[in-house]
Amino acid sequence: MSKRLRIGVVAPGARIDRELAERVAAYASDYLLDRAPEIVFHPQCFLSAGHFAGDDDARAKAFAEYANDPDIDAIWFARGGYGACRMAEAALERLGPAAARKTYLGYSDAGALLAGLYKRGFQRVAHGPMPVDIIREGGGAALRRALSYLVDRAPETIELNTRFDGKSMAFNIMVLSSILGSPLEPDFSGHVLLLEDVGEYLYRIDRTFFHITSSPNVRRVKGVRLGRISEIPENDRPFGANEEEIARHWCARAGIAYLGRADIGHDVENKVVEFGAWSA
Amino acid sequence: MSKRLRIGVVAPGARIDRELAERVAAYASDYLLDRAPEIVFHPQCFLSAGHFAGDDDARAKAFAEYANDPDIDAIWFARGGYGACRMAEAALERLGPAAARKTYLGYSDAGALLAGLYKRGFQRVAHGPMPVDIIREGGGAALRRALSYLVDRAPETIELNTRFDGKSMAFNIMVLSSILGSPLEPDFSGHVLLLEDVGEYLYRIDRTFFHITSSPNVRRVKGVRLGRISEIPENDRPFGANEEEIARHWCARAGIAYLGRADIGHDVENKVVEFGAWSA
Repeated sequence: MSKRLRIGVVAPGARIDRELAERVAAYASDYLLDRAPEIVFHPQCFLSAGHFAGDDDARAKAFAEYANDPDIDAIWFARGGYGACRMAEAALERLGPAAARKTYLGYSDAGALLAGLYKRGFQRVAHGPMPVDIIREGGGAALRRALSYLVDRAPETIELNTRFDGKSMAFNIMVLSSILGSPLEPDFSGHVLLLEDVGEYLYRIDRTFFHITSSPNVRRVKGVRLGRISEIPENDRPFGANEEEIARHWCARAGIAYLGRADIGHDVENKVVEFGAWSA
Repeated sequence: MSKRLRIGVVAPGARIDRELAERVAAYASDYLLDRAPEIVFHPQCFLSAGHFAGDDDARAKAFAEYANDPDIDAIWFARGGYGACRMAEAALERLGPAAARKTYLGYSDAGALLAGLYKRGFQRVAHGPMPVDIIREGGGAALRRALSYLVDRAPETIELNTRFDGKSMAFNIMVLSSILGSPLEPDFSGHVLLLEDVGEYLYRIDRTFFHITSSPNVRRVKGVRLGRISEIPENDRPFGANEEEIARHWCARAGIAYLGRADIGHDVENKVVEFGAWSA
């Protein structure tokens, strides 16, 4: 029998509670039985400092500690909720050779760290479900997908288009917008860019598409795919275009190929997108 | 008696209704009597196309028509509400010499156009109250300020710090964030940057400060002043820092001088900020 996979969980943004961690660990045991990974939740996940799971320094140190631990095979981000951009640079500066060999999985706010890791040449950076997804209705599907991905690289966990598109990246729209021009911004050349969001007015989606598609770096993408834009609040008047019309509009204005929909989003169907093409 | 000032109103974002236009015109007459400006509302202000006061082309054309009209002395943006970034580039390309001689006044979403005008070398670009402010409680104060500014350049209408700070610019935080990297982004070197916002969670203010202060262009400012951050929605947990602590944090991280508060915001006290130092 091969060595059990060891997954380290850290929280670069908001905290989780211990009960959630226990549910995730128990779920993994039930699902994968003797092939279940060992899931180690860093105590930092349970810290609380205002909005965050501990202050910036605590979050950066915990991330770097697990990333640099040669006995940990993968870093799984506990949840989003905002905060990764505050600790990413300090965290990334601490990473050594052991960090470059592991897989990193998360999405939403954690995208700021995924971007920074990928920019630094890390090869195994993936956008996909997180432990917190267990609290969604039907969240077991998201957990199973993340675990099957981390343990087996199961092909059905991967966003289907990305297996044919070549190099890909995936981001939450607001998070991507916030890292443009920052030291976390990766090189988008030749990548298909998958975008998703949740809980944003359509006028904000539109404004952020203006911002993103104005970027000369983003304009070097191979194309854009639109994931799910969910829980759109109702505005005082209808926007006049849906999310796909918005994506098409801005891609056309920017000379970017719009390639259709992507199977990602803030939901239990969120598929895994590997940054680059390292499984290809 | 000198010629009456002629103010042209256009709506680069959301529409206004005719009743509001009539109220503003009547208010100006009552306030300034025989010195009252003639306020001409472009019919485009009353158009409706989804979220916007007419489609992008209608808004760009109306703006350019009034901006290029030698018989109009000032362009007053009717309101914000989102849309200026969609029509700004097309609008700016149409501007001729008459446009460069007039004053432009607005704020919020109209900041995208103010930025683009200033970037193109327009000398009389100002951030300040708009016609729509009449609907605020006590909105007459905002109207009187805008009118006194446009008609008399009354010194008391000007944000006090900017009279000593040298070159200034003012923006809504989200709007500034959205134009960074776009063709509307002006050169911030040596300017004091005044920032305000309304209706945003503190974590979003924080995230956007990360974005703004990461910009190498923004880092060339002389300093940042924080206007009012109003109507902050309550989040599921306290953020742990107030808006001024957020501004100080990101300015310190970015090596930007934080210069204190500014007397601007989405409210009736919103003072006028002239871009550059053209009254100095």
